[in-house]
Amino acid sequence: MPARGDHDARRREVSEAVWRVLAAHGFGGLTMRAVADELGATTGLLTHYFADKRALIAYALDVAEERTDTRKLRTPPADGLPALRAALLDVLVLDKDAATMNRVWVSSWDGALSDPERGAVQKARYRRWRERLLPHVVAAQRLGQLPSTVDADDLVVTAAAFAHGLVVQALFDPRKLPRARQVTLLDNFLAGLAS
Amino acid sequence: MPARGDHDARRREVSEAVWRVLAAHGFGGLTMRAVADELGATTGLLTHYFADKRALIAYALDVAEERTDTRKLRTPPADGLPALRAALLDVLVLDKDAATMNRVWVSSWDGALSDPERGAVQKARYRRWRERLLPHVVAAQRLGQLPSTVDADDLVVTAAAFAHGLVVQALFDPRKLPRARQVTLLDNFLAGLAS
Repeated sequence: MPARGDHDARRREVSEAVWRVLAAHGFGGLTMRAVADELGATTGLLTHYFADKRALIAYALDVAEERTDTRKLRTPPADGLPALRAALLDVLVLDKDAATMNRVWVSSWDGALSDPERGAVQKARYRRWRERLLPHVVAAQRLGQLPSTVDADDLVVTAAAFAHGLVVQALFDPRKLPRARQVTLLDNFLAGLAS
Repeated sequence: MPARGDHDARRREVSEAVWRVLAAHGFGGLTMRAVADELGATTGLLTHYFADKRALIAYALDVAEERTDTRKLRTPPADGLPALRAALLDVLVLDKDAATMNRVWVSSWDGALSDPERGAVQKARYRRWRERLLPHVVAAQRLGQLPSTVDADDLVVTAAAFAHGLVVQALFDPRKLPRARQVTLLDNFLAGLAS
């Protein structure tokens, strides 16, 4: 069924173009015109894919979600604290792809704070991320690597806060926060949690 | 000189309208039309104040900066760790005004990541904030409240990261992170730094 194949190929091209626009200009720069230019197409053609700006944003969020979910993650060397460390390293701005991914997500926060529906989606994303960190914290407590006297969810929120706050500083000041320094800061932070 | 007084009064009204638009819709929703509507004026009148969108954004950033700089801050109960704690409490989402202020700044990050000039301004803002935290960390080290073996700037970056990451989570999930829980998390975090 070549027609279907063509459609899928075109859709992939559109996704690529949307991602390049997000990477360069963020959600604030995501317009039908920008995607059309990136695609070398007319905005008329784009309306075939997106009825309006809202549909384009929803599609772009799907593209960002898929890119995030299918990127290569670290294999945790061991359960507990090393697994928590690996999961946090997966989020930090340690290479160009991670910088792009974070840049796109940080740029999505403005719209998510303005629109209750998008805000609910962002809240759910945060919850899922914390839910993925939680088993590592619980295992670390069981293994005596993190204090059992502290609420596991408190530790998760704190670790997520530290990681995202470091991401934002690294995005704006990459020379101050190169890869090695971010890793050292993470290790010192985890040592503080453990004590 | 009544003309001058009128001008200043009008300028204050414009600033108020810009702030209300930012508080409700963020930088992504900041348009000549939105400010004009908020002011009950025509966009034509607004071009008297702002030649274009770029000038409006620059003005809005000044408004946000002034609001942030002139808000009432906590009086630190003592030097060192208590002063660091007070400075971080000033940033957390502990009341409606702090929520608005943070919501506006988080929404400004998208544009700052897209535009090198705005990015440089944001980087400088971050540096100034860290410079304000640094004396508290240094004093806390001198007083034996924080370990002297850790680089003071590392501690500052870590504290700033934790605070801003907690702000973002609290903006999206205020029910999960009410005021009291944020304060407890901060106190536990500071206890971890101290150990």
